[in-house]
Amino acid sequence: MSGADASETTASGTARRSRLELVSDVLLETTRFFHDERFVQLLPVMLGRSTDPLGPDPGSSILRTTELDYLGQRFYLMNSMILHKQIAVREVGPIWILSPNVRLERAERGRTGRHLFEFTQADFELPGATAADVRSLMERYYARLGTALAGHPAFGRLGVEPPSFRPPWRVVTTHDLETRFGPDWEGPASTAADQPFWAVCHRREFYDREDPADPGHFLNYDLIYPGGYGEALSGAEREWDAERIRTRIRRDGVPPQAFRAYLELAHDLVPSAGAGFGIERLVRFLTKSPHVGDVQFFRRVPGETVAL
Amino acid sequence: MSGADASETTASGTARRSRLELVSDVLLETTRFFHDERFVQLLPVMLGRSTDPLGPDPGSSILRTTELDYLGQRFYLMNSMILHKQIAVREVGPIWILSPNVRLERAERGRTGRHLFEFTQADFELPGATAADVRSLMERYYARLGTALAGHPAFGRLGVEPPSFRPPWRVVTTHDLETRFGPDWEGPASTAADQPFWAVCHRREFYDREDPADPGHFLNYDLIYPGGYGEALSGAEREWDAERIRTRIRRDGVPPQAFRAYLELAHDLVPSAGAGFGIERLVRFLTKSPHVGDVQFFRRVPGETVAL
Repeated sequence: MSGADASETTASGTARRSRLELVSDVLLETTRFFHDERFVQLLPVMLGRSTDPLGPDPGSSILRTTELDYLGQRFYLMNSMILHKQIAVREVGPIWILSPNVRLERAERGRTGRHLFEFTQADFELPGATAADVRSLMERYYARLGTALAGHPAFGRLGVEPPSFRPPWRVVTTHDLETRFGPDWEGPASTAADQPFWAVCHRREFYDREDPADPGHFLNYDLIYPGGYGEALSGAEREWDAERIRTRIRRDGVPPQAFRAYLELAHDLVPSAGAGFGIERLVRFLTKSPHVGDVQFFRRVPGETVAL
Repeated sequence: MSGADASETTASGTARRSRLELVSDVLLETTRFFHDERFVQLLPVMLGRSTDPLGPDPGSSILRTTELDYLGQRFYLMNSMILHKQIAVREVGPIWILSPNVRLERAERGRTGRHLFEFTQADFELPGATAADVRSLMERYYARLGTALAGHPAFGRLGVEPPSFRPPWRVVTTHDLETRFGPDWEGPASTAADQPFWAVCHRREFYDREDPADPGHFLNYDLIYPGGYGEALSGAEREWDAERIRTRIRRDGVPPQAFRAYLELAHDLVPSAGAGFGIERLVRFLTKSPHVGDVQFFRRVPGETVAL
């Protein structure tokens, strides 16, 4: 190996290690935060009787959801624990999960810089909470994370500034974002921003609550990172009325058998709100890495050859 | 619902919640411990190009390992991250992972009280460590956990004593255990014990290191809980010589295609030792629960109907 090669390897090894150290510290700080906020940490689920989002569907980038039969029951490899959270929150109260998700994305999604076919999200749900409560909780989370990580030597080694989160953050409707940036607003709006911002009121999943005071509007919210890094977090107040849930499942044309197990448990649901945020996207943003896969030791980028 | 039913439901709801609170606190204390010991926390992997243990094989209780093809590559649903750890430890140093594992066990394993088809293990690996180093690390872990949890109100609600871990613990060879308790020593030896103990020197997986000073003996170790609760943890010093690994894979007759990806990376391995311990088994032991599934909110017992 030439001297130039060796130094490049060392530099890239140092960068790789710095990113992994930050992943590790983000996991620690996230764990501390939710415990201090009195959430109960549940164990993750990999195989579930219902999951969402399901692929493929006409608007989906997910190639397929993996199904398997085990001792007479059909399971799905979990795309997310959203439905499980809504069932658990009713009994346990505030919950959070460090939840690995598999989404077998189309190969072209590997080039967005933001998509993986396996990733870990911090997924939480809070009974009786409003959208504003969740936004406030998450602003506390990011502020605390920024303070905890400010002195981390990895930033200097990577040549990037430590995070400077200065909430509260702007709340913008997707209607306004579309007016200003067009239908694909996420990239340009993220690039134009210098702090994270909240994008609210998307028409999407059946379990997002429609505003009873303003039908056609939805009590959901995404957090968008600045600098072109795009979506950080996605969440909503949940629909808890089983009949409205059934009506919306029919309306959306999602395959009912995939939601049968969920619907059997979806009685006496409690109002709740929550969200999930990807650990890899967060550390990519903190480290200004070219690709979200750069922060995984075992890289899981759609369309790339996987070593192990 | 009659009064008696209601009070039974409340009592069982309280027990269930108490167990979940202890799971949550064990996850927090485990995270703190490994960070304080300067391990890097890696993200889990659900789909891998190699995994172990594979089912089915003649001695295995695992029905099958789930395989799937994604964009031209074959993946296994992870039974454990053991092979991944050995590759990561070479580059990253001390690592740990909160690792969900799927093992599609035969239905009769649901009746052992100790088996699940999905569970979470704390999985760690330490470069340059000996078996004695790992035993000492884990004795520190359990002692600290016992201290941290001693005052938890869940124990009083459940009517059980808080843990009383008093390491260092006995180290017994499986040869001695077999002599005293017969070939199925785990249950009776666990029942006879009043503190956890180390069972060492099993003939098993190809990646466990054979003692160079004493061929036919293996540098591995299980921790066994007292009171009949059985295996807590399993680990070993690892074989790092790629040629010896290849020889032992051939000798054991394991399907070579499942280990191809691992073997391609298994050069310049470093000596290391590590272990994995199941969070559910730990909390079952702490709470003296009848079944390891009792500590899961989403119960995953082989042969039982799964709600969600």
